Amino acid sequence: MTARIYITPKPDILDPQGKAVASALHDLGYQEVSEVRIGRFVTMELKGSGSPENRQRIEEMCRRLLANINVETFKIEISET
Amino acid sequence: MTARIYITPKPDILDPQGKAVASALHDLGYQEVSEVRIGRFVTMELKGSGSPENRQRIEEMCRRLLANINVETFKIEISET
Repeated sequence: MTARIYITPKPDILDPQGKAVASALHDLGYQEVSEVRIGRFVTMELKGSGSPENRQRIEEMCRRLLANINVETFKIEISET
Repeated sequence: MTARIYITPKPDILDPQGKAVASALHDLGYQEVSEVRIGRFVTMELKGSGSPENRQRIEEMCRRLLANINVETFKIEISET
């Protein structure tokens, strides 16, 4: 199966990288951009099915290694291919 | 509107960060993980509608600033909120 994991800074956490990109986009003439937030997008190939147990293990990986749950949130999407 | 941009290393490009994460997950006991690839997930708030012109401007931002199109691919999702 494939797991897609979206990790984003929490809404109330400052995102200096996003601010820098927004400012660079303004400098390039894209005035329509009001806010940018930059997170990570992890694609993972795994053995096994998308069972609740396997899904729980992926959540555990996120909490233990992939995301910093103090300042980031994550969302997991699983497709069985 | 909100644009969500998914930037990933191209399939034939080495992803050392992904390799390192896969190896760390194995060390933590997650043997079911076979491949990890790490990209970026950009959320952008913009003025205006999701018209073809505005969408084209977002694609332009990706090519000019957000993604390195030599080694990365990107996908854009727009929601009108």
